[in-house]
Amino acid sequence: MIRTISDLQKRDLNHVWHPCSQMKDYEDFPPIVIKSGKGIYLYDENGKQYIDAVSSWWVNLFGHCNERISTALANQAFQLEHAIFANFTHEPAILLAEKLVEITPDGLSKVFFADNGSSAIEVALKMSFQYHMQKNKQSKKRFLALTDAYHGETLGALSVGGVGLYNQVFQPLLLDTVRVQGPDCFRCPFNEKPNNCNTPCITAVEEKLKLHHEEIAAIIIEPLIQAAAGMKMYPPSYLKKLKALCLQYDVHLIADEIAVGFGRTGTMFACEQAGITPDFMCLSKGLTGGYLPLSVVLTTDDVYEAFYDDYQTMKAFLHSHSYTGNPLACRVALEVLQIFEDEHYIKQIEEKSTYMKELASKIFQHHPYVGEYRQTGMVGAIELVKNKETKEPFPSEERIGYHIYQIALEKGLLLRPLGNTLYFMPPYVISKKEIRIMIGLTHESIQQYFENVQNSKVVLEVE
Amino acid sequence: MIRTISDLQKRDLNHVWHPCSQMKDYEDFPPIVIKSGKGIYLYDENGKQYIDAVSSWWVNLFGHCNERISTALANQAFQLEHAIFANFTHEPAILLAEKLVEITPDGLSKVFFADNGSSAIEVALKMSFQYHMQKNKQSKKRFLALTDAYHGETLGALSVGGVGLYNQVFQPLLLDTVRVQGPDCFRCPFNEKPNNCNTPCITAVEEKLKLHHEEIAAIIIEPLIQAAAGMKMYPPSYLKKLKALCLQYDVHLIADEIAVGFGRTGTMFACEQAGITPDFMCLSKGLTGGYLPLSVVLTTDDVYEAFYDDYQTMKAFLHSHSYTGNPLACRVALEVLQIFEDEHYIKQIEEKSTYMKELASKIFQHHPYVGEYRQTGMVGAIELVKNKETKEPFPSEERIGYHIYQIALEKGLLLRPLGNTLYFMPPYVISKKEIRIMIGLTHESIQQYFENVQNSKVVLEVE
Ligand SMILES: Cc1ncc(COP(=O)(O)O)c(C=O)c1O
Ligand SMILES: Cc1ncc(COP(=O)(O)O)c(C=O)c1O
Repeated sequence: MIRTISDLQKRDLNHVWHPCSQMKDYEDFPPIVIKSGKGIYLYDENGKQYIDAVSSWWVNLFGHCNERISTALANQAFQLEHAIFANFTHEPAILLAEKLVEITPDGLSKVFFADNGSSAIEVALKMSFQYHMQKNKQSKKRFLALTDAYHGETLGALSVGGVGLYNQVFQPLLLDTVRVQGPDCFRCPFNEKPNNCNTPCITAVEEKLKLHHEEIAAIIIEPLIQAAAGMKMYPPSYLKKLKALCLQYDVHLIADEIAVGFGRTGTMFACEQAGITPDFMCLSKGLTGGYLPLSVVLTTDDVYEAFYDDYQTMKAFLHSHSYTGNPLACRVALEVLQIFEDEHYIKQIEEKSTYMKELASKIFQHHPYVGEYRQTGMVGAIELVKNKETKEPFPSEERIGYHIYQIALEKGLLLRPLGNTLYFMPPYVISKKEIRIMIGLTHESIQQYFENVQNSKVVLEVE
Repeated sequence: MIRTISDLQKRDLNHVWHPCSQMKDYEDFPPIVIKSGKGIYLYDENGKQYIDAVSSWWVNLFGHCNERISTALANQAFQLEHAIFANFTHEPAILLAEKLVEITPDGLSKVFFADNGSSAIEVALKMSFQYHMQKNKQSKKRFLALTDAYHGETLGALSVGGVGLYNQVFQPLLLDTVRVQGPDCFRCPFNEKPNNCNTPCITAVEEKLKLHHEEIAAIIIEPLIQAAAGMKMYPPSYLKKLKALCLQYDVHLIADEIAVGFGRTGTMFACEQAGITPDFMCLSKGLTGGYLPLSVVLTTDDVYEAFYDDYQTMKAFLHSHSYTGNPLACRVALEVLQIFEDEHYIKQIEEKSTYMKELASKIFQHHPYVGEYRQTGMVGAIELVKNKETKEPFPSEERIGYHIYQIALEKGLLLRPLGNTLYFMPPYVISKKEIRIMIGLTHESIQQYFENVQNSKVVLEVE
């Protein structure tokens, strides 16, 4: 495939170092220059249209350049763009905090603001740690996290992450996290089925806690979906048991709902499905509907009170970011939550996700290279395997996901996979027709890849 | 002083946990609810006006709700609010990267985007570390930083910070940073004067490097002003020598220009005054003129090339944030840089800062409780001392800065101090008249504080 490279692409590559990229890959596959967005579509400099099936890294909810949100942002820009948030406050932050407390699980009453997902994780880790110090539990200096966890890229967040791809090289800089084998429903070692399983995998956590609870400040998890690991899904019953263990062993539960919050799993928050209240809930991404970096950590009165004392006791939580509580981002978030209500999005998600599940299951379930099609709410994942029987994966060096991604882009579908897992995580404004097109193009792309591979094999054999 | 508390203030305190605050302080001193901003002014819910003398934590450059910036933001909101930045790009990011490369010191050619100051620091630390790993310098696992340094609050950034107030309690979670006594011009142990000193304090760095250079990946510093430590200022010659030492010992130099970049020190970047190019330059805060969280790390071809290889070598820098390269924030940053040029702000800063320095020096220099009035560019600092001769500080428990801050707020001046240091870091749109008012109100507030203290002492003696 020969591509011409545009002026803007060349200029991009002169100076921009892209995230999560081997820049050398861009030699063959230069960055696509997006000019505009509307609804589920992005448009490049040549007017080509792409369905944003991954909601631009899982942030977009109500479409690109959503009229209501853009208008709210523009208005706020002429009212109050930003003000220092220590000793000062403003309506957008106050209303947003109220609303978040109202819609999150009971017991979460306090809202601490930060700028991105990673920072929210850092806040939760630091708060949990300092809480225990101030409760005279000096030994509680470690965190427990699951294999395949992803919580962000700053060193604290990266420490609790369990995906080697991201943190291997940085090991000498990372905290000594207590690591526990997490649920692995697709390749369940207990041969259970997620629908009616007894979550025997929770015993791994229980055993670690029995041994180490006096050292552990908090357990951090991605509720229901380990997203960056390849949309690994597990049932709510696991969370329920985890919460019980946390109570039993005096360990905080940090729910990282950065990827799954705001309707992604079918309920407003994933924790709802387990009926639990974590000690900390981290939110970002969808919080601003895909517009602006903003994050929050919600926590309980119990935590808040452990920091509430006379100044001289030096118990305050002295974390801050310059743009904490940014009014522009808060105003956008408020509009997002208003759209959720006004347009009954939880109900829409139910309908749309049911449709997506039926159609995608029918198409992919029996595909010879699809190990599993799984879906939770508006997150659908196709796990490609070399061998459907044994579930043997394709070797990562083959970069099969990456190749299918390139084919799909040609067809106008943005489907950035995670290793061998292709997934759908579209904006909620997607229509049934567009769901059909998205699934159809995905199927075509997979087919085309395997045909190419087969053909190239044939060619090789003829030679 | 009895205050009535408004409905919004009450609602704020119900749910908002403010940054860098002992929330109990808000019982006596509830958060001020800002309704709008214009120019150097913030307006509260009662219409009261405050001069934002600290540019809302050093972020604002061209005034609140700047017409040009707000318009640019509003337009971008209807064009492209955000798109995934891996394999995708857009004009605002490309143009911004080009512009930043153009205006920063020669040799900085690549731009990596992040969301806030702390994240930029984490990126620089991780990049420097991974660079050395990939150059087979496996022993270079530590960072060298100065006493009184401040680089942010995520665990990596906090590790290199040297202000005990922020990181003391978190010690068990922090990296083992090599700490070196930094310059301390106000209480110089060598009895030098910053204007014509030989920076003998650099030998502290030299000695550590001699011993530890094989363990050290990078030195991180705040060029010219250690801001959070209380606007501690030091001469460019220190930076020049530091750069030479870095070259000598194969150690990266990370210039954290998050607070001092974009004209604050009188030049566009502080490093210019020393004529040096660091290996990494971190920018944020003023980058968006105080509108939105956005940060960048600029680095060299040498660093970039150490990561540039075939995918399979696994040398890529796999850091990312969901909102990396956010078009809204990039567009705002572009407009900020355009305003700098169009309205010749470097020249304006020269004039305004000269005026500020003359006036403030005259008023504060000889004040019995002012140890020093110092200024670099548009940053002026008043260091209050108990004893002008011995430079004995006021004990921190007295919270003298905090009390003067409260008095100044009554007078309509936002002057959030750092310990015993009051400082001016106003938006560049401030007029000479407004500079006069700002300085005058500060003087009044200081006077009033000491009169109250004296009076209350008298009262006590009478009792
Ligand atoms: C579950 C989870 N936690 C944390 C993060 C980090 O958020 P950010 O990229 O905004 O730093 C992500 C981002 O992908 C995430 O998916
Ligand atoms: C020099 C310096 N570095 C880093 C930071 C951290 O930036 P942020 O608050 O955006 O995380 C700050 C913020 O005050 C700073 O002054």
